[in-house]
Amino acid sequence: MNNKKPRILLTNDDGIYSKGIYALWEAMNEIGEVTVLAPNTEKSAVGHAVTISDPLRIEPCSRHENFKGYAVNGTPADCVKIAIGSFLDKVPNIIVSGINAGSNMGTNILYSGTVSAAAEGTMLGVPSIAFSLNTFNTDNYELSKEVAIKMTKSVLDHGLPNGTLLNVNIPKCEISECQGYKITSQGDEYFLDDLQKREDPRGRIYYWMSGKIVNNDTSNEQDGYAIANNWVSVTPIQYKLTDHKFIEDLKSWKL
Amino acid sequence: MNNKKPRILLTNDDGIYSKGIYALWEAMNEIGEVTVLAPNTEKSAVGHAVTISDPLRIEPCSRHENFKGYAVNGTPADCVKIAIGSFLDKVPNIIVSGINAGSNMGTNILYSGTVSAAAEGTMLGVPSIAFSLNTFNTDNYELSKEVAIKMTKSVLDHGLPNGTLLNVNIPKCEISECQGYKITSQGDEYFLDDLQKREDPRGRIYYWMSGKIVNNDTSNEQDGYAIANNWVSVTPIQYKLTDHKFIEDLKSWKL
Repeated sequence: MNNKKPRILLTNDDGIYSKGIYALWEAMNEIGEVTVLAPNTEKSAVGHAVTISDPLRIEPCSRHENFKGYAVNGTPADCVKIAIGSFLDKVPNIIVSGINAGSNMGTNILYSGTVSAAAEGTMLGVPSIAFSLNTFNTDNYELSKEVAIKMTKSVLDHGLPNGTLLNVNIPKCEISECQGYKITSQGDEYFLDDLQKREDPRGRIYYWMSGKIVNNDTSNEQDGYAIANNWVSVTPIQYKLTDHKFIEDLKSWKL
Repeated sequence: MNNKKPRILLTNDDGIYSKGIYALWEAMNEIGEVTVLAPNTEKSAVGHAVTISDPLRIEPCSRHENFKGYAVNGTPADCVKIAIGSFLDKVPNIIVSGINAGSNMGTNILYSGTVSAAAEGTMLGVPSIAFSLNTFNTDNYELSKEVAIKMTKSVLDHGLPNGTLLNVNIPKCEISECQGYKITSQGDEYFLDDLQKREDPRGRIYYWMSGKIVNNDTSNEQDGYAIANNWVSVTPIQYKLTDHKFIEDLKSWKL
């Protein structure tokens, strides 16, 4: 890392007006030159969706005199694609996504717009980190900001392997209660669906997707277990999805 | 597999009125009892998005006297969640998704609604297959239907490991030109973005996400290479994303 200020691209999936992106923006300003491109509304659970059938627009957005960014009518992955592919003059040194309201662990990371933004950055060759805080409602981002600064500096110093991002989950606790950092694997946490069937005022049936998070992790080498025990969980994630173990079996199927 | 007809859930991401789902419906009728729940409009490139902030509706849909299904105002993953979690009386024996207009290979499978529907099925414990045809515009589904029947019967016979789906890509060729089946790995095909900047009639700037597929695969053990050489590509896919190789390095970072 040279002495020039690193260029940081900041995005998220809760939208440019969320609390979490503001906290991450404050933290990143201590490290480098920050450009914000984020969805103009909440885009939770959009996964790795990209917008190919509608025009994308980028509107300047100013939350206060210092926080200036760009609001995009697309998904988190769109924001990263448009930033790198067209909008930014120079490729950023790092992409940070978050701070998400709610953890992104286990199989739930597949639904996460926050993690998918980092995945898109990784696929475009830029070291990327996703940050998520294990609560849906808080104004306390002190630990989150400390973690974001440390992790971002560390990635700028060490780099990341091609194709790998860091998925960082932050426990809901005070700085003084946090146990430190734990390098983890993606665990087995999942979302147990509960589809609520209701009737609207005109008598038509509709459903709400609802449910609860279930975690059966048994080791603090797993993300969900670490978070439950007040560790910051740092999981390296990659997207080579082939189930190599099953290939030989499959070859025996005589297709 | 017993002699009772298997229950088959059919979905896709091009929507319930697409050509590909009709072809797959015709094929599946030769095997079992088919229930169709699919998006009411095209949902290409939505990835693993799920709908948590809007009500979901399920409308009966009849394309002709035999093809009866249900149109959902959600994503492919929504269709699978709602079918298994609430709508169907019995869990299906298998889920098939497709036939997608266009291949889903390499890193592009991350954007695919077709593959994500199968991934959702897998996460809910149902053996699932995604089918994609390597062309965006055809009326010739003869090879696709033959492949769909063979692969679906094979999965019903053999089962699949927990957490693993099959991603099947079908070449654009006649049955007589097809080389057969190749068990492959997810290759390195990717989408090279080209963001086109335009001005609307009111003088406002907008962007179209565009680009082209790039494939550098060098072995027909990879999906893109196999398809280019008229093989049916069958890739077992799983979603444990931890980069285990990088964990030791990461532990040395002294966080």
